[in-house]
Amino acid sequence: MCRWLAYSGSPILLENMIYKPAHSLIDQSLHAKMGVETTNGDGFGVGWYGTSGTDDGGPAVVREIGPAWSNRNLRELAGHVRSHLFFAHIRASTGSAVQQTNCHPFRHGRWMWMHNGAIAEFPRVRRDLLLAVDPELFLHIEGSTDSEVMFYLALTFGLEQDPPGAVARMAGLVEEVGRAHGVEHPLQMTVATTDGQSLWAFRYSTQRASRSLFYSTRVEALRALHPDLAFLRDASDDTRLVVSEPLGDLPGMWNEVPESTYGVVRPGGGERLPFAPRVP
Amino acid sequence: MCRWLAYSGSPILLENMIYKPAHSLIDQSLHAKMGVETTNGDGFGVGWYGTSGTDDGGPAVVREIGPAWSNRNLRELAGHVRSHLFFAHIRASTGSAVQQTNCHPFRHGRWMWMHNGAIAEFPRVRRDLLLAVDPELFLHIEGSTDSEVMFYLALTFGLEQDPPGAVARMAGLVEEVGRAHGVEHPLQMTVATTDGQSLWAFRYSTQRASRSLFYSTRVEALRALHPDLAFLRDASDDTRLVVSEPLGDLPGMWNEVPESTYGVVRPGGGERLPFAPRVP
Amino acid sequence: MCRWLAYSGSPILLENMIYKPAHSLIDQSLHAKMGVETTNGDGFGVGWYGTSGTDDGGPAVVREIGPAWSNRNLRELAGHVRSHLFFAHIRASTGSAVQQTNCHPFRHGRWMWMHNGAIAEFPRVRRDLLLAVDPELFLHIEGSTDSEVMFYLALTFGLEQDPPGAVARMAGLVEEVGRAHGVEHPLQMTVATTDGQSLWAFRYSTQRASRSLFYSTRVEALRALHPDLAFLRDASDDTRLVVSEPLGDLPGMWNEVPESTYGVVRPGGGERLPFAPRVP
Amino acid sequence: MCRWLAYSGSPILLENMIYKPAHSLIDQSLHAKMGVETTNGDGFGVGWYGTSGTDDGGPAVVREIGPAWSNRNLRELAGHVRSHLFFAHIRASTGSAVQQTNCHPFRHGRWMWMHNGAIAEFPRVRRDLLLAVDPELFLHIEGSTDSEVMFYLALTFGLEQDPPGAVARMAGLVEEVGRAHGVEHPLQMTVATTDGQSLWAFRYSTQRASRSLFYSTRVEALRALHPDLAFLRDASDDTRLVVSEPLGDLPGMWNEVPESTYGVVRPGGGERLPFAPRVP
Repeated sequence: MCRWLAYSGSPILLENMIYKPAHSLIDQSLHAKMGVETTNGDGFGVGWYGTSGTDDGGPAVVREIGPAWSNRNLRELAGHVRSHLFFAHIRASTGSAVQQTNCHPFRHGRWMWMHNGAIAEFPRVRRDLLLAVDPELFLHIEGSTDSEVMFYLALTFGLEQDPPGAVARMAGLVEEVGRAHGVEHPLQMTVATTDGQSLWAFRYSTQRASRSLFYSTRVEALRALHPDLAFLRDASDDTRLVVSEPLGDLPGMWNEVPESTYGVVRPGGGERLPFAPRVP
Repeated sequence: MCRWLAYSGSPILLENMIYKPAHSLIDQSLHAKMGVETTNGDGFGVGWYGTSGTDDGGPAVVREIGPAWSNRNLRELAGHVRSHLFFAHIRASTGSAVQQTNCHPFRHGRWMWMHNGAIAEFPRVRRDLLLAVDPELFLHIEGSTDSEVMFYLALTFGLEQDPPGAVARMAGLVEEVGRAHGVEHPLQMTVATTDGQSLWAFRYSTQRASRSLFYSTRVEALRALHPDLAFLRDASDDTRLVVSEPLGDLPGMWNEVPESTYGVVRPGGGERLPFAPRVP
Repeated sequence: MCRWLAYSGSPILLENMIYKPAHSLIDQSLHAKMGVETTNGDGFGVGWYGTSGTDDGGPAVVREIGPAWSNRNLRELAGHVRSHLFFAHIRASTGSAVQQTNCHPFRHGRWMWMHNGAIAEFPRVRRDLLLAVDPELFLHIEGSTDSEVMFYLALTFGLEQDPPGAVARMAGLVEEVGRAHGVEHPLQMTVATTDGQSLWAFRYSTQRASRSLFYSTRVEALRALHPDLAFLRDASDDTRLVVSEPLGDLPGMWNEVPESTYGVVRPGGGERLPFAPRVP
Repeated sequence: MCRWLAYSGSPILLENMIYKPAHSLIDQSLHAKMGVETTNGDGFGVGWYGTSGTDDGGPAVVREIGPAWSNRNLRELAGHVRSHLFFAHIRASTGSAVQQTNCHPFRHGRWMWMHNGAIAEFPRVRRDLLLAVDPELFLHIEGSTDSEVMFYLALTFGLEQDPPGAVARMAGLVEEVGRAHGVEHPLQMTVATTDGQSLWAFRYSTQRASRSLFYSTRVEALRALHPDLAFLRDASDDTRLVVSEPLGDLPGMWNEVPESTYGVVRPGGGERLPFAPRVP
């Protein structure tokens, strides 16, 4: 199990979302409330896009293998880096090695990907799934997690052209291969992915008992509920957070993403739609 | 807060005490039950004496800054190193840096030292305590913890000649300096120390509300209670464990060390005596 | 021995100074040419000030204990962080522990400090030097290096008001204490310090055989020498580099800082002046 | 490029081979003489078999991602662990990630494997080579190096039954796949492998310009040459070292393994034979 957070909106210091909330991601690294595991200390990562738009190479991704709660470099970065779109992830390994190449977010070109969940009995199906990855993309797989394989399968199935369709085909393949190996419930996932402009978040599991996923209420509506909150005054109307579990208990702030659903967040808007795997 | 374990007795593989018990130290690193903090992921250490008696240089001490639960090298060592006397410690930092020189056990010559607890408001009193360390010993202080300063104060006060007296004087000084700085309850400690032959364990706090400490029942008595347990058959009569919290719930296995008490464990015997700080 | 680089001038991506030059700091981490040690793999650090001027908390400082050459996070930061004033340092330990709190640059408030060199026989004089640090400042010392003690002595002697005077008094004390312990040549240093606006660099050793130090030629003059170099076109006239050893062999680019000299670099100008220790 | 050392003979403390020789492996980590790269600071590993013969689980393998020269835990282990058969390896990455699962020695059951060299253009041929690994063995591949794939190919081809034959078939496949991808010189290797009893070492490259490899002269002959050397008196007649480069310049001590050759070292004897790849 892991916990993650995706932010899109007015440029802010990362620490405002990662450290300052009452039940921040850092707090969740020590004491998650909704997860299978309460301790998420097997590495972490943050990835962000620059505010200037001049960094052609895509996002910066910083990943480390120790716990986030005691990492001083993360504290420094979060206190000095400002971004309009960033991912943060804390990892609880379910068996694969604690190493940098297994930490989220993963990156390919301008795209980032992070995940909470698991492909059931991954060691048994790993080889078949790897074989389905485009050989050119296969070169770039560095770690040993199911999450990274899911990313490269989605890229193989056209993530850069049609994110929801590619994720659906990835999920379809994982279920197909899993069932061929006799796995009853092959997939359990909440996934976030982005190209630096839009942000997609998916909640799905074969068993229809998916890990938790929440998104923040529209800023406009929050302002009406909480006219006294300073941070809402500076936030643009289209600012949104998508999180594994709420960062606090501000009334009206958090909405659960329903089962088998995905959402898109983009400057100026967003939408919520049903999600179903598709046989690739 | 931290958790620790000290073993003296029949030579065994370290893993038998560190990994195999139901509520092992590894389990405590993720989910301690009796501590102030439930997660102990800010480094760990093991120190052991060789079985051959030919290693004149004293114990081997291996310390790392990541969590114990995911550390593969600890797993390897614990599965291959056999010792009749060893310490193991998992750390939860109360503020000082997560670095190897702050991990327990500490070593000086043939002696080892490990600690759970805190000197209250340590930053304020640290300089005065350091000044009281023998200048020759001061050279060897490498880290920034209260625990290491306590060790070097005890060495200054004669740990190698009279362990209980030296620890009493250390505690007395810590209380004296603390009070001079207006600290109400300067000391909170459970400490283990050894010269490779005997093992001393102390439970004390100024407030008489010390962190938990337990020792195992005599093997002979345990055998009578649990004639079916194989591991008791191989253990010598003088085998003992001292631990921050019990490693499981075997009836009759664990005894609480009373407040303001210390114990000595040595081949052939041991004893339990009252402990009181002494002004040095 | 260590290697370092200080930059002040037009805001640039850190990688332009840390990775791209022919004999970059990364190259020096593997194969330094002018140092006592050729390998500088015992940790590294970068510290930078934000371009916006809105980060009141001073510089961001990121330090790690592994070699710089293989560190992916440093690569990411250097490719995405832009600054008008930054420090970078690669460490070769001369004995003190390889740990984050021993990596440069050190920071106190808005100030940064980094160092190449050594206090001779530091273990013997360390205690006396620590005693001379202002007790309030002493609280903030976290590591075990001579470099950090030098920084806190300079702060004790008024670094924030009069940097050259404070460094002179620090050097004077180090020599005085060293000689009292029978050390013939107590100090060997090249130091850089900054408050985020100006940058001071010092070259001095008791023996007048100081480690190498260089600064870059005025941009205006370089443009006349090399009218074809693109990067010089974008650099403001007051852009300067101070480095342990030249980053390449561009003719006319590098000037040696003379023995017993310090320089100031600031927006709009700079100067070079003699340096001599002063008894504090 | 990497450097490695394999020892078989009288049980000794690891430090006698890893730290004490004039040009020890630790010295080679900073300043190798015969390699393509002079710095080997991208991780290290040691693997050893217990002296008691009671450790059924095979060797202990300890691997870390930092440089060996500054690693205190390696120093501790080397000073306390005694073994009759051990491997030590220092790594210089040629591109793949610096992570524990990429450090040598690799282990499978009772077997260990370590390597210096490279499969040319490994990213291009990696997928085809992985496909040739037995699917049951494929489950155990954790890292991203060519070395680990070579090990699992050798296991696929019967390493446990016929080590020279299996390594020959592995080499044959690597050359075949490389050539199919247009690689002129697909393989460059020196490999050591062991089952805890015998030790095999191979020197081969497609181009017949293999990395250096040496073995020590028979103890009996060395004793005649150097009757005054104490350490030779304690060594059993069948004690042997195989190393990437000599650990010092004792006359008569080191012999080069010829091109396209392998050797076997085992209690009571050993032999040297020609090596040639075989199409699997």
